[in-house]
Amino acid sequence: MPKKTLTERCQPFTRYIEGIKAQGFYPYFRPISRSWGTEVEVAGKRLIMIGSNDYLGLSHDPRVLEAASQALRRWGSGPGGSRFLSGNLSLHEELEERLAAFVGKKRAVLHVTGFSTNLGAIACLLTAQDTILCDRENHASILEGCQASKARLIPFAHNDPKAAAEKLHQAREKYPNGIMLLITEGVFSMSGDLSLLPGLVALKRTFPDLLVYLDDAHGIGVMGYQGRGTATHFGLTDQVDFIMGTFSKALASIGGFIASDDIDVLEYLRHHSKPLIFSAGLPASCTATVMTCLDIIEHEPERVNRLWEITRKVHAGYQEIGLRTGEPVSPVLPIHIGSEIKAGLFAADLFKNGVFALPAVFPAVPRNKAVIRTAYMSTHQESQIDYVLEVMSKLATKHGVLASDLEERGYFANASGFSSPGPGVSDQAISQIGK
Amino acid sequence: MPKKTLTERCQPFTRYIEGIKAQGFYPYFRPISRSWGTEVEVAGKRLIMIGSNDYLGLSHDPRVLEAASQALRRWGSGPGGSRFLSGNLSLHEELEERLAAFVGKKRAVLHVTGFSTNLGAIACLLTAQDTILCDRENHASILEGCQASKARLIPFAHNDPKAAAEKLHQAREKYPNGIMLLITEGVFSMSGDLSLLPGLVALKRTFPDLLVYLDDAHGIGVMGYQGRGTATHFGLTDQVDFIMGTFSKALASIGGFIASDDIDVLEYLRHHSKPLIFSAGLPASCTATVMTCLDIIEHEPERVNRLWEITRKVHAGYQEIGLRTGEPVSPVLPIHIGSEIKAGLFAADLFKNGVFALPAVFPAVPRNKAVIRTAYMSTHQESQIDYVLEVMSKLATKHGVLASDLEERGYFANASGFSSPGPGVSDQAISQIGK
Repeated sequence: MPKKTLTERCQPFTRYIEGIKAQGFYPYFRPISRSWGTEVEVAGKRLIMIGSNDYLGLSHDPRVLEAASQALRRWGSGPGGSRFLSGNLSLHEELEERLAAFVGKKRAVLHVTGFSTNLGAIACLLTAQDTILCDRENHASILEGCQASKARLIPFAHNDPKAAAEKLHQAREKYPNGIMLLITEGVFSMSGDLSLLPGLVALKRTFPDLLVYLDDAHGIGVMGYQGRGTATHFGLTDQVDFIMGTFSKALASIGGFIASDDIDVLEYLRHHSKPLIFSAGLPASCTATVMTCLDIIEHEPERVNRLWEITRKVHAGYQEIGLRTGEPVSPVLPIHIGSEIKAGLFAADLFKNGVFALPAVFPAVPRNKAVIRTAYMSTHQESQIDYVLEVMSKLATKHGVLASDLEERGYFANASGFSSPGPGVSDQAISQIGK
Repeated sequence: MPKKTLTERCQPFTRYIEGIKAQGFYPYFRPISRSWGTEVEVAGKRLIMIGSNDYLGLSHDPRVLEAASQALRRWGSGPGGSRFLSGNLSLHEELEERLAAFVGKKRAVLHVTGFSTNLGAIACLLTAQDTILCDRENHASILEGCQASKARLIPFAHNDPKAAAEKLHQAREKYPNGIMLLITEGVFSMSGDLSLLPGLVALKRTFPDLLVYLDDAHGIGVMGYQGRGTATHFGLTDQVDFIMGTFSKALASIGGFIASDDIDVLEYLRHHSKPLIFSAGLPASCTATVMTCLDIIEHEPERVNRLWEITRKVHAGYQEIGLRTGEPVSPVLPIHIGSEIKAGLFAADLFKNGVFALPAVFPAVPRNKAVIRTAYMSTHQESQIDYVLEVMSKLATKHGVLASDLEERGYFANASGFSSPGPGVSDQAISQIGK
């Protein structure tokens, strides 16, 4: 008999969650019974949504909904198989071409989720002989891919090209023969930080064989000319070997892709990425959604501009209230709280006052560095934003989460934004890998 | 500099694929430009589809399409976030309740794909102290979950409860303290074999702490009363601890779920399954599709009955032609070919003659045990089936792939159906894990 049954192993956690629920500030898995994009209904209550990744508000665009409905009729509701076998649509291939052109690469390979894309691509391309340099705040799906690949995983301090350079020098000396892959996000999902990509790709001058992999899940549709992403924003598309993106943010669907100029590598990947070969293809309705979103983004640059306007307005509003937030370099504007309990109580009170925003706590951010993650959409109305800022102002004072309150509690003593550990590559995770 | 660049590593495979394409029998990633369910259009050519997992043909049911379109309008095209955060729909929770009741368990947890379900569930519940007994033909996503969990992976001969018992005895002696989980599929996707589930759950008499995990991707909607799955078929629902299923087969969508009577374990899983927490939620249109499919399956048992009628008819037809196939215990009827080249040429000729069916070769099946995987739908017309059988008869003789031809070539010398290695747990994969 095992020392502990599976139930006994899980119970302490379940009791902990029950405790939080009993105290009334469990904020997760809120069931949305209806959505109008910038507003949602939960348990009969209408709320202003400031926690969605639907940055351009395209999820409710009538053109998108019509295209999705038409695709349902043309191909049916489900793909009926893996793309490798009976579930490959001409629409998938058209979207691959379209995405490659959109991000400025020769070819792209579609997957059914963003998680699958990172997992499948990294795991099938890298081996135990290789080394991966990974920003400490990279997404969990990147870590999952790294672990499955068996490559050496070397984390570097978040968004710190100098730290990456040091690690790279050490690694190249120690492991002269394997492939070196550096992975960063374009826009980091929790902090909203914009990658210091120029400093990272500059490492190629010293290490010409270094490959750079950019997860631009939160940058596609938002950053750069026509929302073509973070590499375009910096004019560094040629220097980035792999651009990965998802459809579940600005592209109003689910799914993911990886793009590159290296046709051989992508052809290999298409036949070896396990979640691609062994998952059903992306439904036609989702694929058509993404195609239509790209049409709209390319033809209506005012949507991206409007998102930036709103982001700057909210940032200024937060500052005026006296909240501590990040720079407005992306639509993700976290409000720093520190205490995890305070973040939970603050979010619960936001909810009571008609605002849907969620706390991010460890392990999504470091311990005692809890934030309320807010992200706005280009379809938000001025009146909605004014209302949210009013509520924020009232509640921030009530809960004592203004920057001045944080200072009093010593929040800034050794805080430099979001330092390690990040949402995926925590020290614990790394020690589990045993490298 | 690495000994070989990533491009150099991938090129030999890419050249190999180019060679197959040049010879005209590369069968994969065929782009479907339109689908009517039982027929599809590829490159302007209309074909009868006998390779889809849409077993009940619900992917084109007008009620399903209408429900999916309505859900698009109510919730939008994309979820905008992870279920954990801003992408949880009341419809997800309704579907979880519905699925739990459908398979006879207390609760179910939804994931965005079937692959994610196996990966997330197995990886978060098991640890390096635990042992997993795994049928050699289990799906790649199960293997991926086992590897990510770090548990000891012990494969047993395909669908062989006696072999499983031996391995279990050895393992329990050697590792007395960890959890033991036995994983099997209900209906095996390539061979169409039905799990010998009674023999497997009988091991619980000797090992009361053994947990049984049933991946019923190909059984849900097809096996048992009202298509409630393989556990229902055998009347063994109480003996199976976890029932996992996907929506990309009979339920005409994408996604997956895991059901159990253990609320504590599922609550833990819901907060720790990485592809659940770190992927966007299932789009409303996909979720509504599954709900409507369950309505139809429960109210129209004639669909499942019709599927079995067709399966028996095709099986008899294959036998009459002289093809070697499996028993008609599931809608998957592989045609045994042996030679991988012959399978490719045969499939290419089927295509030319208006039939869409694909070869399964190593590693999906053992080396030189290639098959044409055929699977029928309850919406196939008699005329379509008659046509397919006619084509099969003509081409089987032409290509020399009748059972008598196979016998001449010594195909049956040491063939016992699909023995090791299976689609996921190959010896190579196991040696890679190093256990």
